[in-house]
Amino acid sequence: MDIATLGGLVGGFALILWGMISGGLGLTPFIDAPSIIIVVGGTFASFFIAYPLSKALGIGGIIGRAFKNPTDDTAGIIAKVLELANTARREGLLALEEAVGNIQDDFLKKGVGLIVDGTDPELVKSILETEMGFVSERHTESKGMLDTLGAFAPAFGMIGTLVGLVLMLQQLDDPSSIGPSMAVALLTTFYGSVLANLIFLPLAKKLEIRNGEEMLVKEIMIEGLLSIQAGENPRIIEEKLKAFLSPKLRSAIAPAGGGDE
Amino acid sequence: MDIATLGGLVGGFALILWGMISGGLGLTPFIDAPSIIIVVGGTFASFFIAYPLSKALGIGGIIGRAFKNPTDDTAGIIAKVLELANTARREGLLALEEAVGNIQDDFLKKGVGLIVDGTDPELVKSILETEMGFVSERHTESKGMLDTLGAFAPAFGMIGTLVGLVLMLQQLDDPSSIGPSMAVALLTTFYGSVLANLIFLPLAKKLEIRNGEEMLVKEIMIEGLLSIQAGENPRIIEEKLKAFLSPKLRSAIAPAGGGDE
Amino acid sequence: MDIATLGGLVGGFALILWGMISGGLGLTPFIDAPSIIIVVGGTFASFFIAYPLSKALGIGGIIGRAFKNPTDDTAGIIAKVLELANTARREGLLALEEAVGNIQDDFLKKGVGLIVDGTDPELVKSILETEMGFVSERHTESKGMLDTLGAFAPAFGMIGTLVGLVLMLQQLDDPSSIGPSMAVALLTTFYGSVLANLIFLPLAKKLEIRNGEEMLVKEIMIEGLLSIQAGENPRIIEEKLKAFLSPKLRSAIAPAGGGDE
Amino acid sequence: MDIATLGGLVGGFALILWGMISGGLGLTPFIDAPSIIIVVGGTFASFFIAYPLSKALGIGGIIGRAFKNPTDDTAGIIAKVLELANTARREGLLALEEAVGNIQDDFLKKGVGLIVDGTDPELVKSILETEMGFVSERHTESKGMLDTLGAFAPAFGMIGTLVGLVLMLQQLDDPSSIGPSMAVALLTTFYGSVLANLIFLPLAKKLEIRNGEEMLVKEIMIEGLLSIQAGENPRIIEEKLKAFLSPKLRSAIAPAGGGDE
Amino acid sequence: MDIATLGGLVGGFALILWGMISGGLGLTPFIDAPSIIIVVGGTFASFFIAYPLSKALGIGGIIGRAFKNPTDDTAGIIAKVLELANTARREGLLALEEAVGNIQDDFLKKGVGLIVDGTDPELVKSILETEMGFVSERHTESKGMLDTLGAFAPAFGMIGTLVGLVLMLQQLDDPSSIGPSMAVALLTTFYGSVLANLIFLPLAKKLEIRNGEEMLVKEIMIEGLLSIQAGENPRIIEEKLKAFLSPKLRSAIAPAGGGDE
Repeated sequence: MDIATLGGLVGGFALILWGMISGGLGLTPFIDAPSIIIVVGGTFASFFIAYPLSKALGIGGIIGRAFKNPTDDTAGIIAKVLELANTARREGLLALEEAVGNIQDDFLKKGVGLIVDGTDPELVKSILETEMGFVSERHTESKGMLDTLGAFAPAFGMIGTLVGLVLMLQQLDDPSSIGPSMAVALLTTFYGSVLANLIFLPLAKKLEIRNGEEMLVKEIMIEGLLSIQAGENPRIIEEKLKAFLSPKLRSAIAPAGGGDE
Repeated sequence: MDIATLGGLVGGFALILWGMISGGLGLTPFIDAPSIIIVVGGTFASFFIAYPLSKALGIGGIIGRAFKNPTDDTAGIIAKVLELANTARREGLLALEEAVGNIQDDFLKKGVGLIVDGTDPELVKSILETEMGFVSERHTESKGMLDTLGAFAPAFGMIGTLVGLVLMLQQLDDPSSIGPSMAVALLTTFYGSVLANLIFLPLAKKLEIRNGEEMLVKEIMIEGLLSIQAGENPRIIEEKLKAFLSPKLRSAIAPAGGGDE
Repeated sequence: MDIATLGGLVGGFALILWGMISGGLGLTPFIDAPSIIIVVGGTFASFFIAYPLSKALGIGGIIGRAFKNPTDDTAGIIAKVLELANTARREGLLALEEAVGNIQDDFLKKGVGLIVDGTDPELVKSILETEMGFVSERHTESKGMLDTLGAFAPAFGMIGTLVGLVLMLQQLDDPSSIGPSMAVALLTTFYGSVLANLIFLPLAKKLEIRNGEEMLVKEIMIEGLLSIQAGENPRIIEEKLKAFLSPKLRSAIAPAGGGDE
Repeated sequence: MDIATLGGLVGGFALILWGMISGGLGLTPFIDAPSIIIVVGGTFASFFIAYPLSKALGIGGIIGRAFKNPTDDTAGIIAKVLELANTARREGLLALEEAVGNIQDDFLKKGVGLIVDGTDPELVKSILETEMGFVSERHTESKGMLDTLGAFAPAFGMIGTLVGLVLMLQQLDDPSSIGPSMAVALLTTFYGSVLANLIFLPLAKKLEIRNGEEMLVKEIMIEGLLSIQAGENPRIIEEKLKAFLSPKLRSAIAPAGGGDE
Repeated sequence: MDIATLGGLVGGFALILWGMISGGLGLTPFIDAPSIIIVVGGTFASFFIAYPLSKALGIGGIIGRAFKNPTDDTAGIIAKVLELANTARREGLLALEEAVGNIQDDFLKKGVGLIVDGTDPELVKSILETEMGFVSERHTESKGMLDTLGAFAPAFGMIGTLVGLVLMLQQLDDPSSIGPSMAVALLTTFYGSVLANLIFLPLAKKLEIRNGEEMLVKEIMIEGLLSIQAGENPRIIEEKLKAFLSPKLRSAIAPAGGGDE
């Protein structure tokens, strides 16, 4: 569970609720079911026009992903790659076959499998980079779906407010109703803003950051696998892979054992 | 028929209509023929200035495309390519000539034809990529036309509202008419927003997504055709092409039969 | 004459005028000479700061271009290139020298000239691509000038409205003048919006589309010329060049006559 | 002196002043020292946070550059390069050493110097392109500084207006002061708009255009120098360099004299 | 300590405070604790949703960096590189081993170490460029975090104002409270604008500029190290490295001593 995502959402809504209640009128002036239906419904109506059904229906899973912690652990992956490098150095590339069983990550497993099969290095690189590219493309599309929702929500907020204003302006003869009518009209703009700025857009950003981290891990794996295949010294490999890390993270990695030329 | 496009449009308009009617004044306050004419007419006037006549007149077909289901079926295409690979492997490249007849897709057919003709691999790649590039460019232009409409519609909504406000402000002496006049003035902004956010912009997005899917299919075809021409093992080809798919879709593909080296 | 540009402009203005008049007050409330002067003058003042005098003064010609029909005819150019290819195939590259006289297009003429002179293919490509790149750059700059005008016009519309509002707010003591004063203040915003959305921005878009078409034609010429120089089979050349066209346009091209190896 | 920059600024301000005065209240309602201080001061406060002191202090010189005419004369530079090409052709590369003295442009002088020193062509190209790249980067940074100012000015205009509105709303009990108070509150928005749209943004655009022209001249020089070093025929060099020019400018260049192979 | 950052912040806030106080009502109308809590709290709530916890918590350090002066001194680094070049020229690459101790910069130290170890030039380049790329990516992410804060702050300002307006409109019956209520409602918009335009966005810009400077220094180091490894003449190296500098900075560098071939 990603505590930051959950905490941000809970905290943000708590703050807004507190702001509402502190006005002394309770929550009633802020809740208007038709307004909610128009904003949420209109946003998703446009969303379903914009995306093919099979993709649009996956939005729940996409949002869910932003609440889960990523399983990628950069330092751990580098350690794993260096372990494989040492094994390959000492016992040859074929010895990696046994190691495949212990690898959790599908991408790394696939790469090691290709090496063990004696696939041409150029082809290994091309297959892994193609896969990485398409994973990134799918993530970017997921992020784009949340961005699209974040763009339509305020638009339907404004559309709802325009409907409310037109209704209010046609009934100006009862001055006492002007204020409340206008307040209700503004609610859709309010809902649209909150949906966009507290839910859709921050979640989109989180998916983008996560994708960046995952791609970094995959880049490290590719770099490491190709170095292993090329029979490079594990010490050099360690040097190369650590360049992918921030200085803070580097110290967390134990030096590769062997690697004596 | 793309159910999502149709459903989203119908649902979105139903929601907005419901929001209007729930105000208790019926639809009358929201319908003003001159306002509709100014927004729609002005938007298309600018659209015709922006695009050459031959292209601008094709907007109907472009909008229609977003309502049709794409015929591309990624998994099916990969299966087809693998079938061709197996045929080529067993019976030689020339055996593909007979297979051409069974291919529905023009792009794949053309590619197979080039291979059968013994065209140089570099030239095959260049011809197919040029064609793919131009298909994508035409799609992007189509999407751009809807984006342009989506940008002009709110602009003419605002222009209409300014005209209405000027008229209203010149007749402030009759206070009872202020409300309704202003309501009418706001209608063009409302129409412009709905046109942009419920029609033009979501449709533009759908065309963009569709283009992405089509280009992916074409990339798979090119990759597969070049591998077939290079005489690669169908099992390797399958591995390569599956990298283009999401994990979910991969399982849908039956393993390539032969491919025994 | 580009009918779409003219028709769009005339139609757009007619619609807006009709919207004004249908308010029953005639055109008087919408015409305010000082407002027009401030918006148009201010927009062009900033425009002259933004662009060197020699370029800024060319804006008239740039706008004029959007009203003329392009002379490029993609299908015709392909036919011409294929004709040259057949000539070269049958009679050798030098035979193209006579053909140069019949070529209207300066770019194609120059390319054929370079081939006849026996210029190195790499150099032919480099010279033609450099020229094409700079033509595109000049067109993009022209489009950018209209975009700049389209960005300054609404800005000066708002500046004019702010001036009007300040004047109005200083004279609130005469309530009967508030409405008309505010109406006049809004006029500059209105003028700025119309200038941008009915003139500058659509014209900029048209120039962009035109440039795209012209660059496509030039790409076709370069591809064709290099193929001719390489002595490729006219049938292959035709196949290559047709990849640049949309399927609809392809059927319009008669198959290249000879080309029998 | 760049007449367009100066004329645009003077003309733009004259128009706005005329618009103010034509309201019949003189300039007094438009001048409010604290408002000016807040907008200008706040804009530059953020500007100094955004840029390192040494760069921020150079903003005066950067603005000044937009008022000076560029010294680059594309046609003149091409003529100069062709002259050098002819000299090199007739008397050898070393003969260029004497010509160095007559060259005004530092960049061209440096390039000729490198050639005379017998530097490797690849290195000549790399040194000159690196220098060109960094000149362009510095220019882009200068333009970015004006763009930043152009973004902060309206923001501080709005901040000032919000301050004014809050003050006005707290003193609603004196109705006669509402108008003037609100007028003053709007002044900061007005100042911010004028600063951005009549000064910062157009000046940024001019620097961008100027940079484009200067880079074009430098590209021509590099292309020419490398051709001279490669011993190419001056006629071919002329053909190559003219491709950088618009057709209008090309006729202004006298044909290169010699160049007979 | 970066005086510009601090001075800009202090100056900007002083100006805004002065603008508030000059209204004659003191600071009271501008301070509303709940408004501050909603804007700041909501902005950071969305920020924590957007970024993984480990990164989000680093925002303090990131902001702090914009207040520190960079330690990079371009001219000094060039001098250092030239010194190394002279040493290597006179005494051989291995003599650099002793020089490593005197080098402050980790990046340069690492590069020299690689050279001394006799690492392949291609590998040296690849390792250093990978490291440089990732440093730049981390800086860009830091800048992006401030940009994200700068985008959410005005959004929550608007959300707060909508809450305030709804509350005010529900209590229109007490006219005397309208002004102050509305004033309070506007405060969140005001806070959001100030946070974005005086803090987050200018700081983001400063980090961007700083990253540009740091990357320039790293590029100079890489260029210099590779030239040293290639055994180039220090005079040529100096020429190459100076191309990275603005003309003003170049004169600050003492000519490289030896370098006689």
